[in-house]
Amino acid sequence: MNPKPNIVDLPVYKPGKPIEDVKRELGLKEVIKLASNENPYGASPSAKAAIIKELDNLYLYPDGSAVELTTALAAHLGVKNDNIIFGCGSDEIIALITRAFLLPGDETIMADQTFSVYKSNADIESAITIEVPLIDGTHDLDGILARVTDRTKIIWICNPNNPTGTIVAHDALLAFLDAVPAHVMVVLDEAYCEYVTDLSYTDGIKLLGTYPNLVVLRTFSKIYGLAALRIGYGVASPSIISLINKVREPFNTTRISQAAALAALQDQDYVQECRRLNSAGIVQLQGEFERLGLKSFPAHGNFIMVDVRKPGQEIFDALLRKGVIVRAGHQVYPTYIRATVGSTEQNKALISALEEVLSEQGVRA
Amino acid sequence: MNPKPNIVDLPVYKPGKPIEDVKRELGLKEVIKLASNENPYGASPSAKAAIIKELDNLYLYPDGSAVELTTALAAHLGVKNDNIIFGCGSDEIIALITRAFLLPGDETIMADQTFSVYKSNADIESAITIEVPLIDGTHDLDGILARVTDRTKIIWICNPNNPTGTIVAHDALLAFLDAVPAHVMVVLDEAYCEYVTDLSYTDGIKLLGTYPNLVVLRTFSKIYGLAALRIGYGVASPSIISLINKVREPFNTTRISQAAALAALQDQDYVQECRRLNSAGIVQLQGEFERLGLKSFPAHGNFIMVDVRKPGQEIFDALLRKGVIVRAGHQVYPTYIRATVGSTEQNKALISALEEVLSEQGVRA
Repeated sequence: MNPKPNIVDLPVYKPGKPIEDVKRELGLKEVIKLASNENPYGASPSAKAAIIKELDNLYLYPDGSAVELTTALAAHLGVKNDNIIFGCGSDEIIALITRAFLLPGDETIMADQTFSVYKSNADIESAITIEVPLIDGTHDLDGILARVTDRTKIIWICNPNNPTGTIVAHDALLAFLDAVPAHVMVVLDEAYCEYVTDLSYTDGIKLLGTYPNLVVLRTFSKIYGLAALRIGYGVASPSIISLINKVREPFNTTRISQAAALAALQDQDYVQECRRLNSAGIVQLQGEFERLGLKSFPAHGNFIMVDVRKPGQEIFDALLRKGVIVRAGHQVYPTYIRATVGSTEQNKALISALEEVLSEQGVRA
Repeated sequence: MNPKPNIVDLPVYKPGKPIEDVKRELGLKEVIKLASNENPYGASPSAKAAIIKELDNLYLYPDGSAVELTTALAAHLGVKNDNIIFGCGSDEIIALITRAFLLPGDETIMADQTFSVYKSNADIESAITIEVPLIDGTHDLDGILARVTDRTKIIWICNPNNPTGTIVAHDALLAFLDAVPAHVMVVLDEAYCEYVTDLSYTDGIKLLGTYPNLVVLRTFSKIYGLAALRIGYGVASPSIISLINKVREPFNTTRISQAAALAALQDQDYVQECRRLNSAGIVQLQGEFERLGLKSFPAHGNFIMVDVRKPGQEIFDALLRKGVIVRAGHQVYPTYIRATVGSTEQNKALISALEEVLSEQGVRA
């Protein structure tokens, strides 16, 4: 009954603290969660209506191939159905890619502070993870290229990068993709792409025709407000999608998730409105951080990473006691916290709590 | 960009044909699906109500540890919370077990006609699958024991067995578990256990205290009528559960699925009623098969496997054209079809269609 030796010491993922836990543990009535980059405006009303329409079909297996949703998404993205695979969040696509492609001893390259699920899955497959330091919170594409070897199998680029929020610009990304050898898969994780307004940002899906080694990840958990329903997707060449499908469980997304995602996809006005509100929230928070004398990374997703000039974990704890949940514990950036861009009121509450905490801790503008 | 060599030629799972596909392809108005062992009475009304209560929380990640559901289930089963892991159907628990435990070259033993997901996952991990022939559609426990070696890692016992519907009896199972060496994990897949009324059947969860190498799989997809929502679970020692958790994605079940499963679990009257109706349906179908001179395996789940004395695929096609979807293509039993036990009316429609088809094909009682 011995497991794979490499999994025994794997850490378990630490999610953002649930609101109910914080209320109970600290005896608080009002708690604001800005920890998991959830959409503060919720899901499109049409997604809720779509779920209600499926309530008499709970006993029926979902369509394992999600044909209706795939067809609608393919039209929306301008790709074909066989370019798309759905997963239980884009998390599952990451797991499936590693399960299909990584052999023990294969090398995989990523930033030293990025989404943790790439490394945890590489570890499960006994692959060797090479972490390349970010520069000013941004992917060092030349540094990554310099680490490519014959053993390199996958490079992960999170764009915008979680947790720093920075992006790699169009020209830099193209030069990078031109230089990556054909035997290396590049996974471009665009979980937050719908929030980006910067004109230098590139839609990775438009690059798929040029780079057959490219895989783009997207999700309905962020701007579409469906994190509860665990549905994300990968877009790539049919040959890559077909290989990932070989290791996919037959029914890996729920009937409810497929129906809600389809409805949410068809409500692009709602997506536009969420993007607009998020951009306003970024301006609001960045202005306040400046006023408080705090440096933050350029924010392109729905979250901001800010240097609080004290151990981030201490500020996290102090904010928690005031009923605001953020994220800390970033190994490379120990004095930073990451906060989701909330509604105007939530952002005000965050700033108010942060100002009190920093004042108590003697941090001055 | 080479994948793991062993996955290239893996077959893709063939699910039961969806009703809508059959209607469209064959121009039929009425189609009955008895192909995927779904509960013909649907889900408990309380599950639907629980989903409606969650509709304003679609933007929030689920509780990755499913604490509320786990606590309720632990109380229901008489185990502790750390004995339980939830998955995207018990399918995912199978995948997680293989991902955590199987190394290339490890051996895993199963029946030669059983749930296909055990072998497909063993193949992904480059493990060696040893298939032991069923005897009269029933697991040959002695035959399985005879194939155990130092390399054996996992034995899979599907009880009731899918697709044959047979069970292994209490005494035989205990003698088997006593004889299995401690280094071998036994996975007892009890997806259909709630349907079983035979007194010789054993609840595997009661055996966990005696056999630390035992893992029991259960699901909300069958008698609980929640196949759409992809939620199943494994029950085992805390040390095994902890190891499987190492390879679980942080948010692998949806918020909606957790809420619906909790409500369904609390409506045991509904479960009892579904069991009663299913038992009546088995009596109905077995009586009709006898009348038609057809031999079927003893049915303990919500499906019956019956010998139609012609290539099963031909009978499947002929039934399909009459608007009844069943399952065929069983390698070891090429002249059998598997039909889900439906409602009284659905069972009548199946028998009526089957009688016509057999008559057309010259099969006589």
